[in-house]
Amino acid sequence: MNDHKSFLEHGGDIYTEGKFKGIELIDFSSNINFLGVPKSFTNNVHKALEDIICYPDLKYREAKLHISEYLKAGIREENIILGNGAAEIINLSIRALKKPCIVVPSFSEYETTAKAYSKEIVFSYLNEDFSYNYNDIMERLKGCDGLVIGNPNNPNGGIINKESFEKIIYYCEEHKKKIIIDEAFIEFVEDENQSFVDKCSSFKCLFIIRAFTKFFAMPGIRLGYGVSLDIDFIESLSKLQIPWNINTFAEIAIKSVLKDQEYINASKDKHNIERQYFIEELKRFNFIDEIYETHANFQLLRSINITGEDMFNFCLSRGVLIRRCRNFRGLDDRFIRLAIKSREDNQKLLNIFKELEMQLIGGK
Amino acid sequence: MNDHKSFLEHGGDIYTEGKFKGIELIDFSSNINFLGVPKSFTNNVHKALEDIICYPDLKYREAKLHISEYLKAGIREENIILGNGAAEIINLSIRALKKPCIVVPSFSEYETTAKAYSKEIVFSYLNEDFSYNYNDIMERLKGCDGLVIGNPNNPNGGIINKESFEKIIYYCEEHKKKIIIDEAFIEFVEDENQSFVDKCSSFKCLFIIRAFTKFFAMPGIRLGYGVSLDIDFIESLSKLQIPWNINTFAEIAIKSVLKDQEYINASKDKHNIERQYFIEELKRFNFIDEIYETHANFQLLRSINITGEDMFNFCLSRGVLIRRCRNFRGLDDRFIRLAIKSREDNQKLLNIFKELEMQLIGGK
Repeated sequence: MNDHKSFLEHGGDIYTEGKFKGIELIDFSSNINFLGVPKSFTNNVHKALEDIICYPDLKYREAKLHISEYLKAGIREENIILGNGAAEIINLSIRALKKPCIVVPSFSEYETTAKAYSKEIVFSYLNEDFSYNYNDIMERLKGCDGLVIGNPNNPNGGIINKESFEKIIYYCEEHKKKIIIDEAFIEFVEDENQSFVDKCSSFKCLFIIRAFTKFFAMPGIRLGYGVSLDIDFIESLSKLQIPWNINTFAEIAIKSVLKDQEYINASKDKHNIERQYFIEELKRFNFIDEIYETHANFQLLRSINITGEDMFNFCLSRGVLIRRCRNFRGLDDRFIRLAIKSREDNQKLLNIFKELEMQLIGGK
Repeated sequence: MNDHKSFLEHGGDIYTEGKFKGIELIDFSSNINFLGVPKSFTNNVHKALEDIICYPDLKYREAKLHISEYLKAGIREENIILGNGAAEIINLSIRALKKPCIVVPSFSEYETTAKAYSKEIVFSYLNEDFSYNYNDIMERLKGCDGLVIGNPNNPNGGIINKESFEKIIYYCEEHKKKIIIDEAFIEFVEDENQSFVDKCSSFKCLFIIRAFTKFFAMPGIRLGYGVSLDIDFIESLSKLQIPWNINTFAEIAIKSVLKDQEYINASKDKHNIERQYFIEELKRFNFIDEIYETHANFQLLRSINITGEDMFNFCLSRGVLIRRCRNFRGLDDRFIRLAIKSREDNQKLLNIFKELEMQLIGGK
């Protein structure tokens, strides 16, 4: 999996282009809640400092109890596995498959992990408008033992239509195939019912991945989890984990932010407003060819008459990091992804885009 | 590796017997620097809170630079791999061997890891006085591709004699076998030259594991590292790691405590004093049959006329958790391990032992 340690692979590398050169960049390349770290965490950090002299509970019993209460879906402690970032949960669950079907374009770690463990991979490509191709998924699943799919999907932000997906769930449940749904961005979706976590109490085939990274604005805390009714599956993954994989600060985060309803509500509301505003404003630019439907906190664009590389460099020269998408399977350098941020930051980006548009019109 | 999630496997489980029952225990079962969390870390936690909204540097460049400066052994960034606890480094390096020779009794994770990855294991047992059997190691290595050895070794605290070990290093270097030396407790050893990290700049076969857990009293931070001249080996291990395996608080710990010379010196001095005091006092008890030579911050004992279970329960009933050693390969329930703690705590334990001795004499 060493590929993930290259610059292009992920957003959020503010180091190579920014910090190490002494430049403060506005980061539109990683998709973090623009409300910032919840105060409910900051205010409880002192508890971590008290606890850090002890080993965490090997079984993380209290932490899992908090998650089960947060999910309100009849999920018990034994149905939960904690990961050092959703990255660890992605890694463990994909390793458990023999031949995964991966819906693409999507988060590159799915493919990177499958390849690192020498899995044969089958790809189901999204439709041209980046909606899921349910029929294609169904067909390709027949030769596979599991599906890997994002909901919402990264980099486009589309969500699964629950009705259309139903027969895939029934099929997988019957044929003992796994469905790994990465819901790292699900809390940004306006309609809470779009999550499949409620289906976990009925279908053993489902394995849902969640993260603290994005919605709770803590990529530095490294914290994710997986949920499944299939306790044997949870157990088989946890056997491959190192002991104490979650540190004390991450444990305190679990215990602090999941019940911070004020932060949760404000985040949902503000992202809904900014998403609408941002999309409307982006429509004005002639160098943007397509704006794809998103329910997450990021926006995929297809450019015209300018490459992703040129857009990236133009924005970087003005202190803004955007995400080129050419390393997503199925995308090329016309595509870029933008985080949806605060009004102030969004306007800064829009102003840079206006400047770019002027240059393009001027033929520079 | 699920075995490690059981109570008996490790020290430091203050949850099952303590916290979950609302009891505050004095923990002599895990070997943590009794000076507590360095203030140099606590005072810098606010920096982690500022950084946590960003992903850590994928390559952890600054953190590795701090480690290379701390080691003062010509170790460069590319010779260092960071782990989510020394546990991750143990896991990765043992997975890299086909057939490890493990020196035992020792930290149970070596064997647990090797078994989890279906390795054939060869054991070299310590001598009866728990010194290393260098001839036996040499013989057994001939059928193996690597050695796993603690320095100091857990649970006894003995250290490797550098002169006696030299021919093993030359042999492994010539025959391309790996030597994994777990130096998680090395900073407690009075003579700094007992570490093999200085040999890393000369021998590619060496791979040294270090931890922040023990000496810097932060088991909750989950932080360890591995060092080797063999960059290809480091690369091959890092390919199996998930991205961003170290969280922001752990990064700040690296940048804070390694240059805290005041804490380092005070820790060494105070442990030397307490070790001598504790050993002298322990010699008074008739139910202690053997006290083994230690250079670390823990003491292995062999009991007589009482089992480890009875000692454990007696101490627990008086609010103290000690470490039974029957799950160490080669040991039985006569053996217990005690952390060396502050004078106040050590005296509390000694008083409990006095009470126990009275009961044993009284025939209760």
